[in-house]
Amino acid sequence: MAQVTINENEVDIVIGALHSDLKSFLNEWKPIFSRFHLIIVKDPDLKEELQIPGGFSADVYTKSDIERVVGSSAVLFSGYSCRYFGFLVSRKKYVVCVDDDCVPAKDTAGNMVDPVAQHIVNLKTPATPFFFNTLYDPFRKGADFVRGYPFSLRTGVDCALSCGLWLNLADLDAPTQALKPKERNTRYVDAVLTVPVRSMLPVSGINIAFNREAIGPALVPALKLAGEGKFRWETVEDIWSGMCVKVICDHLALGVKSGLPYVWRTERGNAIESLKKEWEGVKLMEEVVPFFQSVRFSQSATTAEACVLEMAKTVKEKLGKVDPMFSRAAEAMEEWVKLWKSVGSS
Amino acid sequence: MAQVTINENEVDIVIGALHSDLKSFLNEWKPIFSRFHLIIVKDPDLKEELQIPGGFSADVYTKSDIERVVGSSAVLFSGYSCRYFGFLVSRKKYVVCVDDDCVPAKDTAGNMVDPVAQHIVNLKTPATPFFFNTLYDPFRKGADFVRGYPFSLRTGVDCALSCGLWLNLADLDAPTQALKPKERNTRYVDAVLTVPVRSMLPVSGINIAFNREAIGPALVPALKLAGEGKFRWETVEDIWSGMCVKVICDHLALGVKSGLPYVWRTERGNAIESLKKEWEGVKLMEEVVPFFQSVRFSQSATTAEACVLEMAKTVKEKLGKVDPMFSRAAEAMEEWVKLWKSVGSS
Repeated sequence: MAQVTINENEVDIVIGALHSDLKSFLNEWKPIFSRFHLIIVKDPDLKEELQIPGGFSADVYTKSDIERVVGSSAVLFSGYSCRYFGFLVSRKKYVVCVDDDCVPAKDTAGNMVDPVAQHIVNLKTPATPFFFNTLYDPFRKGADFVRGYPFSLRTGVDCALSCGLWLNLADLDAPTQALKPKERNTRYVDAVLTVPVRSMLPVSGINIAFNREAIGPALVPALKLAGEGKFRWETVEDIWSGMCVKVICDHLALGVKSGLPYVWRTERGNAIESLKKEWEGVKLMEEVVPFFQSVRFSQSATTAEACVLEMAKTVKEKLGKVDPMFSRAAEAMEEWVKLWKSVGSS
Repeated sequence: MAQVTINENEVDIVIGALHSDLKSFLNEWKPIFSRFHLIIVKDPDLKEELQIPGGFSADVYTKSDIERVVGSSAVLFSGYSCRYFGFLVSRKKYVVCVDDDCVPAKDTAGNMVDPVAQHIVNLKTPATPFFFNTLYDPFRKGADFVRGYPFSLRTGVDCALSCGLWLNLADLDAPTQALKPKERNTRYVDAVLTVPVRSMLPVSGINIAFNREAIGPALVPALKLAGEGKFRWETVEDIWSGMCVKVICDHLALGVKSGLPYVWRTERGNAIESLKKEWEGVKLMEEVVPFFQSVRFSQSATTAEACVLEMAKTVKEKLGKVDPMFSRAAEAMEEWVKLWKSVGSS
């Protein structure tokens, strides 16, 4: 089936720098990343100077750069959300984004996984959200549609978001991580699948790629926890943003895939320390998930921007009374769309 | 997580015999099947005497046995549908069913796969249809729920149907098989996942297991093609029955899983010969899928039997005018529920 060409000029790799020393991180990724243009956004809360090795074509954005471009909206881009500034200033069709505590993984044959190539293949081949294919991605070499799959649905739809996975340290929440400190994910599942329409998933920002032209404005830096920290399990910005993208993709007839590529997550942080903070993010999901499951858009919302604005309104109305954090999220969504229209290249 | 005990007294293995010589088939499966009670149902159209090796606890049913038990309803059980007679006379909680052209597969480490054990694990551990877990089955050793997965949904629901897969010859339709005669499925995907609620899938009858007490009556031998043959790609009875099970599971808050275990499908048949027949099954899917996607049950339908009866009525009303085959399917569904009530042990 589909042969995919990977064009360097179509791809930006966005790195949110939560750590100042990116030397070993970038050197590990050099064989894969050096072909591409990098956008490195330094967490505005990070004081130390970034250390970036040579051999990359990279644009680096610091707190003062962010403030110059977006003024007082810079507050949207602290902590893990700094990467969204990279999404905003990118001019490429595809964005690939990997956390700075991940290194390349190996497949079951011991070969280094190229997540950029796999993400782009995921995005350039169709998604099939309207009927589940039991042999996973039918567009993969050696795979196909299974008997009974309607022919009218085999063309599929464009894929807008590709969610990769993690070996070693999985993306667990703090309670689960604290309960099983020694658990490591060692299972390499050799599959990509389309997440069916109207099925919600916890999109993790650790290792994703997306079609920025199709869905960029839907990746919103919106839900910030009061006690948000600098460990993944202390954040939910990506979970919220992922649900926005998923419901918008469902509405616009675009696809979301999950599975390959894997990255290898290295250890850091102490989940038990994180547990001492309130389990705010965990509790919020009980409100957030039913909300997103019920969101519907008007027929006139035909772009990602329009959908985000409609959703912001609904968030304010339905979730605003539950917790003021949600009203702030709704405001951030409106602000983000404004930025996308003025600064972005939509 | 969950440790699962496999109790021989809870399991029937049902084999529909489309071939008279079951010697090599059963001998290949002996290490796995000999612990369990077998129900072997001979295709009533098959003339030659069955050849069954020793060393099994098996009840064998032939055309005359079927007629003795169900009278004129015996017509429901020809060809691949003979297995449904086995579902009807089973008295066990779980039924495992494998086509007689499959032999044990090997996993990536070269170990023989025990599909009975894997199916029972799938059925005895919860399913999670209401939210997608990106790390697949969270109840598997080494896996868990991913950050952002709502805690209130982590208990899951009972799993009613486990759909296994195939190495070597995949379950393709005749056109696809004819187009790619040399294609073989060699990818062992080490995963089990819950198919999300309201997502339809092409359930293949080649390698399945189900909780007969929970959902048995929903596996209906209903849709028979006018030109139905003795190759899998010439049938759709399992596709129809699978959609019935899926929509009923969705209504009753039960789960359907897909993935492991694999079986190895050996070659037989000539897809190009099958193509000379009308592509009846392929064309029907275009009507069948939207129908099942729209089926809803009344609140008073709280059992699989009641759901099948409601569905039969809707099939007659909505699909009956499209093709008389659907009216016959609806009648078969009503007949099946009657049989289940009189002969079965519901």
